Amino acid sequence: MILTVTLNTALDITYHVPSLRPHTSHRVTEVTERPGGKGLNVARVLAALGHEVTVTGFVGGATGRALQDQLASVPGVMDALVPVTGPTRRTIAVVDTATGDTTQLNEPGPLVSSAEWRAFQDAYEDLLPAASAVALCGSLPPGVPVGAYAQLVRTARSASVPVLLDTSGEPLRRGVAARPDLVKPNTDELAELTGSHEPFQATRDARRRGAHTVVASLGPEGLLALNAEGHWRATPPAPVEGNPTGAGDSVVAGLLSGLVEGLAWPERLSRAVALSAASVLAPVAGEFDRSAYEELVNHVTVDLFQRQVETW
Amino acid sequence: MILTVTLNTALDITYHVPSLRPHTSHRVTEVTERPGGKGLNVARVLAALGHEVTVTGFVGGATGRALQDQLASVPGVMDALVPVTGPTRRTIAVVDTATGDTTQLNEPGPLVSSAEWRAFQDAYEDLLPAASAVALCGSLPPGVPVGAYAQLVRTARSASVPVLLDTSGEPLRRGVAARPDLVKPNTDELAELTGSHEPFQATRDARRRGAHTVVASLGPEGLLALNAEGHWRATPPAPVEGNPTGAGDSVVAGLLSGLVEGLAWPERLSRAVALSAASVLAPVAGEFDRSAYEELVNHVTVDLFQRQVETW
Repeated sequence: MILTVTLNTALDITYHVPSLRPHTSHRVTEVTERPGGKGLNVARVLAALGHEVTVTGFVGGATGRALQDQLASVPGVMDALVPVTGPTRRTIAVVDTATGDTTQLNEPGPLVSSAEWRAFQDAYEDLLPAASAVALCGSLPPGVPVGAYAQLVRTARSASVPVLLDTSGEPLRRGVAARPDLVKPNTDELAELTGSHEPFQATRDARRRGAHTVVASLGPEGLLALNAEGHWRATPPAPVEGNPTGAGDSVVAGLLSGLVEGLAWPERLSRAVALSAASVLAPVAGEFDRSAYEELVNHVTVDLFQRQVETW
Repeated sequence: MILTVTLNTALDITYHVPSLRPHTSHRVTEVTERPGGKGLNVARVLAALGHEVTVTGFVGGATGRALQDQLASVPGVMDALVPVTGPTRRTIAVVDTATGDTTQLNEPGPLVSSAEWRAFQDAYEDLLPAASAVALCGSLPPGVPVGAYAQLVRTARSASVPVLLDTSGEPLRRGVAARPDLVKPNTDELAELTGSHEPFQATRDARRRGAHTVVASLGPEGLLALNAEGHWRATPPAPVEGNPTGAGDSVVAGLLSGLVEGLAWPERLSRAVALSAASVLAPVAGEFDRSAYEELVNHVTVDLFQRQVETW
C-alpha cells in the first residue's frame, strides 16, 4: 500500500452564499462537508487510480469523528489515523454563488501533546514496513515540533521506503535537509525555501539542500523536475479553467503512483500534469475528471533539458 | 421547571480573524464553540437566575453530538432534545479582531421528516405537565410545517401552561393567531407582522391579532408592553455598548422568570430590560454581567400610559 501522512487533517466545509459581504448576516444556501487535508486528497486520487492507500495523521473531537465517519465511505482508503484530545480543525470555503469567488477561513488545528506526537511516531513506524511509498503532506498542527517532517523522512529512509515531502516554510526547510526522495514545492514555497524567484535556479538550489528529486509545480504551466537522471519540463496541452484547490495533491498522487508502478520519469510527469489539470476540472479537491485525465495524459509535452545533472 | 423549545438548535462557532477580506484566505486566530439557538440562550440565563430549566427541540449528527456534549456541562439545564437524522446546523460569527465587526454565516438546519415532527410533538406533550411556563423560540428548520408554533401554542394552552412565542415571519403570524400568552417581537418583526412602523400602533395591532400580552423590544430604548392590565414603557437608565446578540433572549428569560415568580408587570419589565442591557455587556449570547444586572434593575424607568386597555 501507499501511505499518506496528514498531521493536520481537516473537516473541509463549503458554504454557498449569494455574495459574501463583510459585517452582514448571510443565510447559507448550500453546505457540503468532506474529509480534508492534503494527504487525504492525495489518498482519494490514489484510490481512484486503483491503488491501496492507508491514511495516517491526527484526528480528534467531534469534527474528527465526522471526518472518520465520512472517510469510512471512501472505497480503497484505509483509516489509520491516530487519536488526539484536541479537535480536528475545520476549514470553511465560502463560495459566492454568482461569481464562484471563494473566501477561505482555516482553523489552526488541535494542540498536540508530546505524548501524542510520540504515539504518532510509533504508529508511523508500525505502518512503514507494509508501505511501498509514503507522502508527508501539509502543515503541522500546534504542538508538533517544527522538525517533525525531518524526523519522519529519516524514519522512512531507515525503513527503505521512498518518501515524498509536500509542505512549506520551516518544516520544508528542515525536511529537505533530511534528504527525502522527492519534494514538490509550488513556486511560492520554492522561493521561500531558496530565496530565488527564478524556477530553474530555485529548483537546482532546492536539490542542493538535500532532496534527491525536486518537482516544482508551476501551476497552469506544468512541472519542472530535477534529479540525478535529468532535468525535465512537463507542460499541459492547454490551460484549463476551474477550481485549482487540490491540483497540487493530484500532482503528488501522480508522482507516487508512477513511482510504485515503476514508470520512467517522463511518464510520471505526464501523469502528474494530466491528473493536476483533470482535478482543476473537478469541483472539489481529491477528485478529478477521469475522461479529461485519460485524454490529457497523451498530450502532455515533456522536454528533457539536460540528460545528466552534476552529482555533488 | 421552565421549558424552552428550540426547533432549530445550532452549534454557534465564533472565529477571530484580523480582518475579513472577501476572496482571500484567512488563518483563524481563535475558535470558540457553544450550544446555540434562542431557546438555549434563554435557558442559560434562566439557569443563572436560579430556575430549573429543560430544553427541547431537535438535535442531530456530529454537530448535534458536540452541542449535547457542551450542554451537559451547563449547570441547571436539563437536556430533553429530540434526535433527528439530519445534522444540527452551525452558525459562524467571524469577528474582525481590530474593530469587533462581525460577519455572520448561518446554515439552514436539518431537514426534519414528518415522523420526526410527530415524535417531537409527543415529547413536547409529555414535558408540558411538569412545566410552569414554556417559551417557543427562533426559526423553524426545513421540513417543519409553517404552522408548527400555532400547534405548539394550542397544545400548551390545552395543558394550561403559559406560553411565550419569540419568532418571526409567517410562523409568528400563525402562532399569534393561536392566542399565546405572550409574544416578544422586535421592531422589525413587529413591522413585518402588522405593516406598521409606529411601535405603539403596531403593538396594539399585534395584540388584536391574538396575543394576550405583547412585549415589543425597542433595542437600546427598552420595551413596550401591552395587555388587558395596562400599557407600559420600560426604559434603561442609559444606553450600553457591547454585543447585542442574545439581548432579546435575555428579555425572554426576564419575562418568563418574572411570570413564574408571580412578579407584577412593572417588575417583570424592569427585570427584562436590566437583563437585556447586562447581556449586551457580556461577550456571548446566553450570558449576562451579573453585577451590572443587579445595579441596573433598580434604575429601569417603567411608565404606565394607560391603566385599562379596552377588551375586545
